[in-house]
Amino acid sequence: MSETSRFASPSTRRAFIRTGAAAAAAIPAVAAFGACGESRATTPPADTTKTAAPAPAPTPREKADAMDAMHEKGVKAFPAKTEGKGNQPFEPRMEGGVKVFDLTCEEVQWEVEPGRKVKAWTYNGQVPGPQIRVREGDRVRVKLHNKLPESTAIHFHGLELPNDQDGVPFITQPPVKPGESYTYEFTVPNAGSHMYHSHHNAAIQVGLGLLGAFVVEPRRARPAHRADVDYVMVLNDGSHGYTLNGKGFPATEPIVCKQGQTVRLRFMNEGMMIHPMHLHGMHMTVIAKDGWDQPAPWKCDTLNVAPGERWDVLVKATNPGTWAFHCHILPHAESEHGMFGMVTALVVKPAGVA
Amino acid sequence: MSETSRFASPSTRRAFIRTGAAAAAAIPAVAAFGACGESRATTPPADTTKTAAPAPAPTPREKADAMDAMHEKGVKAFPAKTEGKGNQPFEPRMEGGVKVFDLTCEEVQWEVEPGRKVKAWTYNGQVPGPQIRVREGDRVRVKLHNKLPESTAIHFHGLELPNDQDGVPFITQPPVKPGESYTYEFTVPNAGSHMYHSHHNAAIQVGLGLLGAFVVEPRRARPAHRADVDYVMVLNDGSHGYTLNGKGFPATEPIVCKQGQTVRLRFMNEGMMIHPMHLHGMHMTVIAKDGWDQPAPWKCDTLNVAPGERWDVLVKATNPGTWAFHCHILPHAESEHGMFGMVTALVVKPAGVA
Amino acid sequence: MSETSRFASPSTRRAFIRTGAAAAAAIPAVAAFGACGESRATTPPADTTKTAAPAPAPTPREKADAMDAMHEKGVKAFPAKTEGKGNQPFEPRMEGGVKVFDLTCEEVQWEVEPGRKVKAWTYNGQVPGPQIRVREGDRVRVKLHNKLPESTAIHFHGLELPNDQDGVPFITQPPVKPGESYTYEFTVPNAGSHMYHSHHNAAIQVGLGLLGAFVVEPRRARPAHRADVDYVMVLNDGSHGYTLNGKGFPATEPIVCKQGQTVRLRFMNEGMMIHPMHLHGMHMTVIAKDGWDQPAPWKCDTLNVAPGERWDVLVKATNPGTWAFHCHILPHAESEHGMFGMVTALVVKPAGVA
Repeated sequence: MSETSRFASPSTRRAFIRTGAAAAAAIPAVAAFGACGESRATTPPADTTKTAAPAPAPTPREKADAMDAMHEKGVKAFPAKTEGKGNQPFEPRMEGGVKVFDLTCEEVQWEVEPGRKVKAWTYNGQVPGPQIRVREGDRVRVKLHNKLPESTAIHFHGLELPNDQDGVPFITQPPVKPGESYTYEFTVPNAGSHMYHSHHNAAIQVGLGLLGAFVVEPRRARPAHRADVDYVMVLNDGSHGYTLNGKGFPATEPIVCKQGQTVRLRFMNEGMMIHPMHLHGMHMTVIAKDGWDQPAPWKCDTLNVAPGERWDVLVKATNPGTWAFHCHILPHAESEHGMFGMVTALVVKPAGVA
Repeated sequence: MSETSRFASPSTRRAFIRTGAAAAAAIPAVAAFGACGESRATTPPADTTKTAAPAPAPTPREKADAMDAMHEKGVKAFPAKTEGKGNQPFEPRMEGGVKVFDLTCEEVQWEVEPGRKVKAWTYNGQVPGPQIRVREGDRVRVKLHNKLPESTAIHFHGLELPNDQDGVPFITQPPVKPGESYTYEFTVPNAGSHMYHSHHNAAIQVGLGLLGAFVVEPRRARPAHRADVDYVMVLNDGSHGYTLNGKGFPATEPIVCKQGQTVRLRFMNEGMMIHPMHLHGMHMTVIAKDGWDQPAPWKCDTLNVAPGERWDVLVKATNPGTWAFHCHILPHAESEHGMFGMVTALVVKPAGVA
Repeated sequence: MSETSRFASPSTRRAFIRTGAAAAAAIPAVAAFGACGESRATTPPADTTKTAAPAPAPTPREKADAMDAMHEKGVKAFPAKTEGKGNQPFEPRMEGGVKVFDLTCEEVQWEVEPGRKVKAWTYNGQVPGPQIRVREGDRVRVKLHNKLPESTAIHFHGLELPNDQDGVPFITQPPVKPGESYTYEFTVPNAGSHMYHSHHNAAIQVGLGLLGAFVVEPRRARPAHRADVDYVMVLNDGSHGYTLNGKGFPATEPIVCKQGQTVRLRFMNEGMMIHPMHLHGMHMTVIAKDGWDQPAPWKCDTLNVAPGERWDVLVKATNPGTWAFHCHILPHAESEHGMFGMVTALVVKPAGVA
């Protein structure tokens, strides 16, 4: 696939150092990028303190090489390790037939990209909060424990709950004060890709991380919607920058499958902007909007996801390779320093490969 | 439903006063919010002029209480009274079988929210202008009287009129100068949710209020589209801020229906930004786009409405209660000071209640 | 149709001159605007250097006239001549059954509107690059020659190519350095309205003009999609401002057809913002998204096109006249100085007229 190693030439390294960019230290990339991941020897930065004479201005080629080195560094680092992982499966504990989920709101330092830590308000220390998956008709109890300095409340976005479980302070409940707890309990009414998030001072609180996926499996699954991989992708653009599941590229998570498999993607936008998500190499078949089946599924390769929307798509992974997958508002995905933010990859492993 | 009265505690009031926020004077809310509307005694603000010693810094709990009090105040005020109401039904006068509508463009002071008055350029003193409702095949005459200091013209957005009635200065007509009048006349060609607005210096004039709904009933109504309530919601984000039918929360208008009824909503975006409108508690079935029936109606709870678009949806009001209904770009709907702008409520009165 | 000549009154001219606006010199407009295009005698600007006394402040009417004159000037200039034309049909040369397209990336000065030249990074000196049209199953070779000071690469947006032809530096290929060339070769896999553009430092490079249409005719055309006119409209909002096919109004290109004909429009958004394109006078039937047939075509007059998306529509040109056609985010289309940016016209010539 990739042939990047061939142009990690000495001139690249020299220009890169001369222009003062941070060293493009080789970071072994995982199998996701296949051949891209070959580790390379690091080049120690030149000691520039000794030389009195100013360095000659970089040539255009050297400047291009320096920019490319920054781009390469990001790709090679993918998927970069960071502390903390959001959107983890949330196993409920059972209490007499009721699935109980304890959600503690607390502030943590969240590593969005390697080395960039931000203040985050989280459910259980994760951004997005732990992924709740239940089934239509389940009895669910959600216990909110507020360890934040502000009041909060949980709205179950998309669930058609009784009014007093809707989570809107002063309309359907009091706000949950700092140090207090509050319990929601309901029978899950409608299937689909939904969300839970704060509905109090929400422009701030959701931007800081108080959000998560709430997926409801239908009582009877549709055979046409069968998938080998079921992946939730939460988009956000609040105070943590442009993120997919709480991380910015290269710390985003690749979606991995085998050739011939079907991948179900559940896009959820918790941000303030649209994000038209573009998949390279294969198309997506749109099967549901906000948890409701589309009556006439349609195909696309760029899906515009607006704030509050959820879109479910199926991808038939026919085309092997590592495929860029990113928001097509390009400033959400790339700068002169390389790709960042809302970029990940769909990795389709060739059939017959372990 | 709501239980807000239980936490109007003394400590809340104290913190609220100490932080200097405007007094959360009890404003009797209308029946829209049901139990939320219980009137409470006002708390007179403490006399701070006597004390020489500085007040101690508020505790986190007091700060949270103060923020909550601001949020509560907004909700309790809903729907707040303001001067002026836009989008009012416009009864034509008949002239020999022709429905005649006189539209006078004039500047007024428009109260967007209680106490916030802005300069508005209006049709007949309303923002949005009076709601025109006619039927396919009707003969219509619109007389424009320009009392503004700028020229203007009316474009009937969505109507497939003869070219010389299209309202675009220098392409299909001269601009209508200050002090002058201009007459449009046509047979209404196509049904649906349309709009009328200025098409001259329109980025400014429409932002200032020169816009209105132009709804065309079909010659033969579709039984599947029968609705008990038919509500036009015009979105705008110009110089008046984020508004629904010319008002910002808490001065927006609740949509009220009875359980079991069907509500038809006609979203119309006259602004410059998308507004993904999110309804709590129930889904919407999308039946028309720009006045044209969708061949395969589809369901959602968050509908992305782009500038110039009109979307018609049906809501089957199965779920009783007061349901938040707002733009899901959260900074268009809420700040640290509480909900504002593009927020209203769908109020579903329980069956059997008067 | 238009009656603009009747209000080119002396008072208009006087006010226009007095307020110091550029002279609304008569520019003969082409047949596109029909009667609007009648040439008028130019009015020589008054010699203001002689008078010592300050001119009296303009009256409101004079100010309105001055504004209108600026608006008129823009419309009358349409379609204004500028140097350079993008999106031109690209005839391949054949090499043993392979369609070969040479694309040279080079910097040029690009005239966006009359007199406004900007730095552009182009394919073959055009913005958008030359329009590639091939057929499903064709063998295609694209030779990229990089004469820019930065590295680049071509991504064939929407084509489901083998991974090593996907054009993403460091994932599927090395970047193409300044002065170097690179060859892509593939069998065209899927029909539809696609694009080619840079995928390296793309937020900058695509904004500067490195983009073009890549249209793939299906092996078997659908009779229902037959069209008399097939028009690609590339939207952009990068460093060149708001453009349609690389030009801003009044230098945009009208789309011309005869009454009764069918026009196929292929919208392609290469920008960073949504652009809800609004056609006056007739509706559009949406037949494809990102090159994939919509299973249930639907109608609209305002089509929201997000970055990276392509939408194909059919317009049955039933309504004769010159119809404004513009982005309905009004600040992308009009200012106090008149229409600009994303505005063009659909010109439907009456049946029976040559």
